[in-house]
Formats: sequence, C-alpha cells, structure tokens
Amino acid sequence: MLSSDFESIEKLKEEVNIAKILFQSASTQRKNEALENMIKELEKNRKKILKANELDLKSAKQLLDAGKITKSAYNRLKLDDDKFSTMIEGIKEVIKLEDPVNKKTWAMKLDNELDLYRQSCPLGIIGVVFESRPDVIVQVSSLMVKSGNIVIMKGGKEAQNTNIALYETITKALNSTYGLTKNIVNLLLTRHDFHEILKLEDTIDLIIPRGSSDFVNWVKDNTRIPVLGHSSGVCHIYVEPLADQKKAIDICIDSKIQNPSACNAVETILIDCEILKEFLPKLVEKMKENGVEVRGCKMCAELLPDIGIADEDDWYAEYGDKIVAIKAVRGICAAVNHINKYGSKHTDCIITEDKDAAQAFINNVDSANLFVNASTRFSDGFRYGFGAEIGISTNKLHARGPVGLEGLTTYKYLLYGKGQTVHEYCLGKKTFIHERLL
Amino acid sequence: MLSSDFESIEKLKEEVNIAKILFQSASTQRKNEALENMIKELEKNRKKILKANELDLKSAKQLLDAGKITKSAYNRLKLDDDKFSTMIEGIKEVIKLEDPVNKKTWAMKLDNELDLYRQSCPLGIIGVVFESRPDVIVQVSSLMVKSGNIVIMKGGKEAQNTNIALYETITKALNSTYGLTKNIVNLLLTRHDFHEILKLEDTIDLIIPRGSSDFVNWVKDNTRIPVLGHSSGVCHIYVEPLADQKKAIDICIDSKIQNPSACNAVETILIDCEILKEFLPKLVEKMKENGVEVRGCKMCAELLPDIGIADEDDWYAEYGDKIVAIKAVRGICAAVNHINKYGSKHTDCIITEDKDAAQAFINNVDSANLFVNASTRFSDGFRYGFGAEIGISTNKLHARGPVGLEGLTTYKYLLYGKGQTVHEYCLGKKTFIHERLL
Repeated sequence: MLSSDFESIEKLKEEVNIAKILFQSASTQRKNEALENMIKELEKNRKKILKANELDLKSAKQLLDAGKITKSAYNRLKLDDDKFSTMIEGIKEVIKLEDPVNKKTWAMKLDNELDLYRQSCPLGIIGVVFESRPDVIVQVSSLMVKSGNIVIMKGGKEAQNTNIALYETITKALNSTYGLTKNIVNLLLTRHDFHEILKLEDTIDLIIPRGSSDFVNWVKDNTRIPVLGHSSGVCHIYVEPLADQKKAIDICIDSKIQNPSACNAVETILIDCEILKEFLPKLVEKMKENGVEVRGCKMCAELLPDIGIADEDDWYAEYGDKIVAIKAVRGICAAVNHINKYGSKHTDCIITEDKDAAQAFINNVDSANLFVNASTRFSDGFRYGFGAEIGISTNKLHARGPVGLEGLTTYKYLLYGKGQTVHEYCLGKKTFIHERLL
Repeated sequence: MLSSDFESIEKLKEEVNIAKILFQSASTQRKNEALENMIKELEKNRKKILKANELDLKSAKQLLDAGKITKSAYNRLKLDDDKFSTMIEGIKEVIKLEDPVNKKTWAMKLDNELDLYRQSCPLGIIGVVFESRPDVIVQVSSLMVKSGNIVIMKGGKEAQNTNIALYETITKALNSTYGLTKNIVNLLLTRHDFHEILKLEDTIDLIIPRGSSDFVNWVKDNTRIPVLGHSSGVCHIYVEPLADQKKAIDICIDSKIQNPSACNAVETILIDCEILKEFLPKLVEKMKENGVEVRGCKMCAELLPDIGIADEDDWYAEYGDKIVAIKAVRGICAAVNHINKYGSKHTDCIITEDKDAAQAFINNVDSANLFVNASTRFSDGFRYGFGAEIGISTNKLHARGPVGLEGLTTYKYLLYGKGQTVHEYCLGKKTFIHERLL
C-alpha cells in the first residue's frame, strides 16, 4: 500500500496483519518468482523510473545551488543507468541466496512420538526508514520478499518521485506473481505517517533506521518497537609492540582513507608506548601524504609538535572524514580499556605478530567485530560473504555485526505429540528421553 | 558486592565493568570449580541459611495472620531441607551442561589467510529481579557463572535475611576459587538501588524480571535496557474437526489443571463448530468434575445453559486459576485469527489427526511454542531438555520460548588476517573466495 491509499494507520495495520499471515508460509520457489518478476518489471519501466528521478534531481539541484544540500547528498539521490543495473544485479544475488526460513536449526526427542523442533520463520512486519538513496527501496524489498517479511518503508522526501515510481513497479511485479498476497511492500509518504507507525508496537516487530547517528538515536528514543542498527561507528586500531610495522601502516591507511565516511573506517589509532618513538613519525608521515589531518594525545604532540592536539571529545568522535586521532597507551590493558570506554562496540583491530596478545584483545574488547591484522573496512556483510546486508548492528541481542537475511528471521518451537500430558511425567510414570535429533 | 558495600551506584558500575572483563574469558574448568565450591560452601552453611530463613518466615507469618499475604506467597518464601537439597541438585545439573561460550558457530574463509569466525561469548552484565522465592538466587547465580556473565540481583524484601545468607555463601565460594575475579554475583537490597540500575543502559546488557505481568510491564516501561521475559501467558487449545476427542479431553484437562497458576496453562479452548454439539458437553463435564469453572461464548451457553457467559475480557484473561473460557469457532482461520488477536504469543496447541490442518496452524499462529496433540504444560526449559531455564521469552528478537544458557550469550565476529587491506579488493586486484569453513 502507498500512504495515499489508506485513509488511516488503522487500515494499514489491518492490511499488513492479513498480508503477514498469508505471506509467511510462501514457498522459496514462489518468492524467487516474485524476485524474477521484480527484475522484469524494473527493466520494463527503466526509462519511466529514471525520468521520475530526473524530477527529483531538478528540485535537488536548486537546493544544491542554494547551498542547502551537499554535493554528496545530491549524488546519493542520483539514479543513473549504471546504478540501475547494479540494483538489478543485487536482486539476482538475493535470488541465489539460501531461503532463511523453515530451516530446522535444532531438534530433540522428548519421548517416543514426542518430538520438538526449533524452526526458523520470518519476523513478521518490519519498518525500514532511510534517507535519500532511492535504490534502497529495491534492495530492502528484495531482502524482505526472500525472508517472507512484510515491509513498511519510508524514504527521504527529496526522492519522493523516484520512490513512488520504484514502489509502483515493485508492487506491480509482486501482484502479478501467482498466489502472492497483496501489500507485501508498503511505502509511507509523510513524516506524520512514519511517526504513527512508531506507535504500532503490537504490529511491527522491528524497525531498521538507516541514516545519521542522531537520526538512529531519535528513532530509539521514540518507539517501544525493537530497533536494529548502529548509531555510530567509532572504530579503533591498536598497534601492539610486536606488530609488523609495515602491515600496521598499510592497515591504518586503508582503514582511514579507503572510504572515510563509512561506519567501519578507523577513527582512533592507539600506539603502544614501547614503539611510539619509532612508529609514530612513519604513520603520521603516511597519513599526511594521504591528506589526513592528525590529532594526537599530549605524548604524541611532544614527539611531533606540528600535529594537532586531541582533547576528550576526539576520543568519542566519529569524524567520517579524513581526520584521525592518535593516542599513546601503555600496554594492552590500557588499549582495551580505552576502546571499551570510548568505542561504539562496532569494529576494533589489533596489529600484532603475538598470538597471546591477539587472543587477549579478542577476549576483552566488547565489540561486534574484532580483527587481527586486517583493515577495519572488511567489516561488511558483502565482504563477510553474507550475499546481502540489511545493516550493521551494535546491539548485543538478536543480530550483532553485519546483518544478512538470517537477522530478519526468528524461530518457533514446534512440538509434535500423540496426545501426551504432563501429569504422567510429574508422577514419575513416564520419563523424558531427551535425545538430540539435530 | 552487596548493596550496603558500595557507597553509590557509580562504584558498583565501575566494579562490575572490571569484573566483566576479567570473568568473560574464564575457562570451563575454572567455572565448574566455582560451581563445585558453591555446593561445598552451601552444604557447610546449610543450618545458618535455614536459620536466616526462619527469621524471614517469622515476619511473614505475622503478615499471613494479618491477611496481608497469601498462603502460597508464604510457602514460596519457605526454604526447608528438601528445597535446599533440590537447590544443590540444580547446581550439579548446571555443572553437567555444556559451556555455552567460546563456541564457533559459523566460519568463512574470505581469502587465503583471511578467516572469519562467529564465536559465542557472554552477554556481559545481566540484571535479574525476582519476587519472594529465595532459591532463585542460587539458580540464577549458577547459570550466570556457567555462562561467564556478571549478575546484579534484587530479591523480594520479605526474603532479605535468606537472600543475604545465600549471597554471602555464594560469594565466599566464588572468592575462594583460584583465579576468579571478585564481584561476579552482586545483590541489591533496596528498591531505590534497583530503580537506579534500570538507568545503566551503558553498563547492563539485559534485564530479566521474574514476577507478575504488571511487574514485568512496569520494568519494560521504565528502562531502555533490553528486557527478556513474558508479561503474560494466554495459551490456547484449538480442537479441530478431525481431532481424536479422547486425546482432546486429556490434553485440555492436563493443560488446565496440572498447574493452573503456571504461565503455560491453557486459558481459552477453541472448539470447531462442526464438532461443538458432540464435544462440548463431554469437555464441560470433565472440567466440572475437576473443579474448573467454565465460561462459554454465546453459542456454547445456548447449548449448555448452566455454564457462565464469557465476555470480551475473558478472551484476554490469564486466569492463573481453575477457570477456563471456551469459544466456538468456524474453521481453522477463525481459530488462528482469535489466537493472534487475543493471545500472548506464548504457547498454543492444535488437536487434530489431519496433518494439513496441523501445518496450517503452525505456519499461521505467531507464537513462540506451537504444539500438535500435546499438553501446553510441556512448554518449559527442563521438559525441552535444556537442563536449565532462566525464563520463557515472548520476545521475537534474540531468545524466544524457554530460554536456557544459550540465551545468556551473544557472539563476536573474529577476523584473522595477515595485513590485508580492502583497497586491493575494490580495485579488483584480489577477489574474495567466500568458502564456508563451518
């Protein structure tokens, strides 16, 4: 459904609840057919969609010229032929992925003819809210279809024309798929409607916000529905005394400059005091060569007086830019404590050739992704081989780290009996077998 | 730590954060030694603990006589020699359970010498709050020790003397275990302190409230920390037209009377209209024989004018008593819709000999536990063979249904490299292998 099609949120609620029941047991074949139809319909409407995008770009251009949006915001909004093809490729990848639902993940024979299974199933109804990039609609819709979930989306106002064109095309494809229910994919057009759905804790199982830290925090503070995502990515690299310093330089540079605005870019580098004098000048030189501004702790600034001085705020900062903070630490405990105090539990890395140090780091840093001798930029669902990524979670419950299709499922316990009652087991007339079947 | 030992919540926060880091990598052997020491120390202090309980019982007796507490609340508070031995047996069972942490649950070779593992780890710091039963302290402490978590507990005020005696004994046992950190188990004595810890969302990873629905809902409304538990258990049985009616009667009776105050007892029985005339009188007769009050829908009351009439509130009711609501439904869809509307997503059962009906029920009812031809009372961690139960969850995220040790863990992604950077993969100089290792 589209925001303008339902008169009230009550109507939307009713319709998605019906759709949920009908869609959650759709077969893998049926869901893949729907995805194939999405590809066909998108190709058929390519020109129309790109035209809608031109309308959005025209308005955005005025905002850009007036200095009201950044060039990168303008670029994110743009949907060209290349991005369109990448979008289609994305659906093909989702078709290839294993269906995450109806998988038996554990089983126990409680007694003869009394078998218990744990079986994966869709979460149900998921709300996704994102900023300008309109290709997100296609990516999210395909993941939701594959995992058997109903989705209610809200995109950025600046991409409204493109969003509606994509929504209409996807809906046409889904409605033309034999045996599928209506209203699997739903789009909200106004901020008012989005605020209303945040109240539907009895209907919506999960909210996934994609946007700035402030936005994610705002969503968390304004709903009782569970929220999946990360509000910030303050990632660290700790260069341990037994580090291979050549590797350390390469990894620090890649982690900082390969894409400084990504959430898995490094923000603070911790250098062990033992190697500070030797390593710091080499690192700072390379950073400067790559146009990175360096802000160091007092000890660093004493060694290299021409770098900036970092204050308390820098240790909490997610620069999202070519700026890096550097701090000298005495030993692995100090490094671990700094990360656990200032970090965002996202991705943290140790550079060392010492296995014991690596193990201590991994055991004691309380983050979703812990790396030994590898760039923090590897922290990503596609690079992890999940085939798709709905986001990166810094929650500890449910899904942690990069989240693929599995994070969109839950499970049910299914018990198949022949009329057994608990009474006999309590009296000791019968005893449980408890034999693992799976 | 005990409430009276720390001057402020800040101090507690600092101490448990240190304890977390030190305890999370404790070996299975070390943790089992701690549990063995708990058994020894409890046996050594049996008399002292039972004496402390007598003090609590003395005060409770006055409240009982004054009609301020119920007989069953008084009984729950009581710790006698039998209960004490059962408590000790519980620790022995936990020692036998598999250690849930440091298990590799998934692995992927991203490239040569770049291996990614998903490994289970403790959640960190868990708050548990419970009402009168003092044996919960021992049960919860043993589960937390085995899973490598730090626990902050708050028990009922009426069990204060017993709680302190148990806490001191457990702490002595843990502190005497070679190599373990202090402050693994912590006890709050005042409601004020409990309210304060609900604010520690940056320190506490999970709150587990054990008590009435109202209490669980109150906790959910007063903290931003994730809450694991169920606020109510409105369980259903649907008697389908192709049910074996003998089995149906046995299961309905067992589900209702075997322990009417349990959360997995049945509250509403749905009977298909096709078999209503035949089945209802038999069921009602048996219920009455067992002292159960029956409240029926209009159609039921027309057939049997001497039963009570259920209104809308009855469909939402968790009686927790020998009362059952009965409703006639036309077909499986009506049954499913009733359960999804009025149920609490806890445990629901279908009685049928028809596999297709069973499958449709399982697919479409949105509950944690779905049973075919078995008593709802089987919905329990011990009966499921988990060996221990921390509670039953009606959350869909993280742990659903009965929750054992696994529900007290999360996971980390661990990536072991040799200095790899993302740059080469983006340029196409290197490509990912993505080969599943596990």
